[in-house]
Amino acid sequence: MNSPAEWRKEIREGRWRNPTAGLAPGYAQANLVVVPEDYAYDFLLFCQRNPKPCPLLDVTDPGDPVPRYAAPGADLRTDLPRYRVYRDGELVEEPSEVSGLWRDDLVAFLLGCSFTFEAALLRAGVPVRHLECGCNVPMYVTRVACRPAGAFAGPLVVSMRPVPVHQLARVFEVCARYPRAHGTPVHVGDPAALGIRDLVRPDFGDPVPVRGGEVPVFWACGVTPQAAAAAARLPFMIAHSPGHMFLTDLRDEDLGWE
Amino acid sequence: MNSPAEWRKEIREGRWRNPTAGLAPGYAQANLVVVPEDYAYDFLLFCQRNPKPCPLLDVTDPGDPVPRYAAPGADLRTDLPRYRVYRDGELVEEPSEVSGLWRDDLVAFLLGCSFTFEAALLRAGVPVRHLECGCNVPMYVTRVACRPAGAFAGPLVVSMRPVPVHQLARVFEVCARYPRAHGTPVHVGDPAALGIRDLVRPDFGDPVPVRGGEVPVFWACGVTPQAAAAAARLPFMIAHSPGHMFLTDLRDEDLGWE
Repeated sequence: MNSPAEWRKEIREGRWRNPTAGLAPGYAQANLVVVPEDYAYDFLLFCQRNPKPCPLLDVTDPGDPVPRYAAPGADLRTDLPRYRVYRDGELVEEPSEVSGLWRDDLVAFLLGCSFTFEAALLRAGVPVRHLECGCNVPMYVTRVACRPAGAFAGPLVVSMRPVPVHQLARVFEVCARYPRAHGTPVHVGDPAALGIRDLVRPDFGDPVPVRGGEVPVFWACGVTPQAAAAAARLPFMIAHSPGHMFLTDLRDEDLGWE
Repeated sequence: MNSPAEWRKEIREGRWRNPTAGLAPGYAQANLVVVPEDYAYDFLLFCQRNPKPCPLLDVTDPGDPVPRYAAPGADLRTDLPRYRVYRDGELVEEPSEVSGLWRDDLVAFLLGCSFTFEAALLRAGVPVRHLECGCNVPMYVTRVACRPAGAFAGPLVVSMRPVPVHQLARVFEVCARYPRAHGTPVHVGDPAALGIRDLVRPDFGDPVPVRGGEVPVFWACGVTPQAAAAAARLPFMIAHSPGHMFLTDLRDEDLGWE
């Protein structure tokens, strides 16, 4: 099984409930954020004003569960292995499909994710520590404020990957090709510059070692918009469950600017 | 006089009513589209779905005439040398300021413009024919449909610049650096592939000669969103007058993806 469509069918039919990392290599996976139409403009504007943490791939029309651009044959109500449902900003359930919760005023946003540039880094011979360790990438809430938009505001959340200093240029060259997968790093080096106190205590995910000759490199993280949406205490919101992404029909290489 | 702020002051105080090409070199100029809040979501979504013709630089909050990101010290009601005012899709006046027409429900969109990549092409030694000829760039309505968004739909409008075949790669390399200034060309060669019948009869602007050893190269054009907005027959819309752009504080080099 290789194509995103085949994997989405497996997921839709309940045969795959696990994280999606490594599925359908070469195809872009996406973060999902679903908000009521009343909040869609503010969220879309938040993404426009914060393109590195919020690289938009597709936005559905109200009530339409089909991402017409990113995967015309998919159904966002059933094609992710696990969802998170928020009411008034609180996580209330983590179901494996949301057909029963779907409403005709819901707008779905798909955002590029780090899997795209991590695969490209590996192809380029750059190690990705959390994959070596078999754990989640460490994520940190920074003191860098996102540009607010209506109901949505909050700090930039970043992910960290240690990079051998001699491969820094390569990392920027590779990531510059994927502006719709968070693009180039937002910071290199001293975590304090972002207001991060202690690398071994990430706010999300797992800590990873930074070895001799390596420097911590920080990327804008897709948790940023989810955190801003949760902080906005929307009456209702659906998102993917961490690591349980949506498999698009877009190739990783489509995540440049067409 | 060199800085965008100095030029905006000249314009605001009525001392400059001419086209803005060549003013404040090195700084990005922008297309302006102002629509009522009721249409802002659809227009923002239209831009998200059609990033090459509609590369968003900034979106103001309703009623706010200040582009907080692109030029925090500017006033969009007075700082362009000439505006176009549309009612029900019809051009009704072309004033030199719109303070008296401003409303607290207006949302302004600033979009990157071709001046940015034309300056970069000249720096790279690529000739720009319409500048050599001292005329407007030729623009054509294509049979390529934009991805619609709510009230907004319509064909892609392109601009054409003849390029010596041996400089094609250079053109793509240069333009790839400016995704927020229409980015890379959308087509090279046969105009018929875009549904363009006759290069010597552009829909807007002036025809330019394609010489021996040159190939016509087509870029997505900022007229596209204005045409879609006019076709949507919005009750009210303000745009810049062709060639009379807004001078931002952003450098041309900022029009990559930050």
